[in-house]
Amino acid sequence: MPHIELPDAPGILAPMLFRPETAAPLNALAEVLLRGDNTLSRGERETIAAYVSRLNSCEFCCESHSAFAGLQIDGGRPVVDAVLVDPGTAPVSPKLRALLAVAAQVQRSGREVTDEAVAAARAEGATDTEIHDTVLIAAAFCMFNRYVDGLGTVAPSDPAEYLPMAEEVVAHGYTAPG
Amino acid sequence: MPHIELPDAPGILAPMLFRPETAAPLNALAEVLLRGDNTLSRGERETIAAYVSRLNSCEFCCESHSAFAGLQIDGGRPVVDAVLVDPGTAPVSPKLRALLAVAAQVQRSGREVTDEAVAAARAEGATDTEIHDTVLIAAAFCMFNRYVDGLGTVAPSDPAEYLPMAEEVVAHGYTAPG
Repeated sequence: MPHIELPDAPGILAPMLFRPETAAPLNALAEVLLRGDNTLSRGERETIAAYVSRLNSCEFCCESHSAFAGLQIDGGRPVVDAVLVDPGTAPVSPKLRALLAVAAQVQRSGREVTDEAVAAARAEGATDTEIHDTVLIAAAFCMFNRYVDGLGTVAPSDPAEYLPMAEEVVAHGYTAPG
Repeated sequence: MPHIELPDAPGILAPMLFRPETAAPLNALAEVLLRGDNTLSRGERETIAAYVSRLNSCEFCCESHSAFAGLQIDGGRPVVDAVLVDPGTAPVSPKLRALLAVAAQVQRSGREVTDEAVAAARAEGATDTEIHDTVLIAAAFCMFNRYVDGLGTVAPSDPAEYLPMAEEVVAHGYTAPG
């Protein structure tokens, strides 16, 4: 049960409906980070988001962004599920694997990010902008995950319930709910 | 030294200059959360931001938001410094003290927030919106702190260097650097 009285909507949609003033910049941030022009594909960026959400044990964000990633990454949902189990053995590019390692360090703390992990990503071809965006996506999901769980929002338990949300995001992006 | 090549600017200003596309929603979020219309004062909200940044050991964010808070909270900087040492004994209102306890739970994980801590804040007069905003401010600084440290940005070591930044934010708010 949510810690405050929220509209009846799943996960982050409930506090976004409750407080549209903060929903607007949150959606704008997700839109530019996960869907804006980028040399990382939308599917790759959503996979980083899902992976960090799994590390933070945030069910709603992990399920929803896994669904968003599954519709957009080469290889589909099985690739996303393999990343959630172990990025080290998942069938993704060496560059994405190295960026996921940086994201895992960010999830623990910004101070945990090592020169070695950044150098490894660079050695696999990651650009400064890709490293920047990976750090900020991982950091942003440390916010979104805490927002969703810190208010005690409700996550649908049936993975099928996330699919309509995923189709909406893939088609129209991150826009304020309403 | 930063992990990527960044403009020569302190802390978060460097990656914001590097990537204005993401700086815009980040500044918009800070502006509404820390300076928008609210029953929590700007000084109280900046104090929550500084406290979470201290818990995350983020020197740049803690020093800068402590400076912003010190210029805006009743009692000034000594009150902020007392919160950073121990909110339990700091000379702040019982409501702010209870909200700082919620913020500390959010800093550890969204899943750490307890019914008891939220009920304690409510018993001291906190509204649903104040609880919502406290959770989101704490969550947002778990992002900002990771962004700043995850990229290895440089924090000025002299507290006096944060004062011009503080005067600028108090006068003009969170606007994109440039």
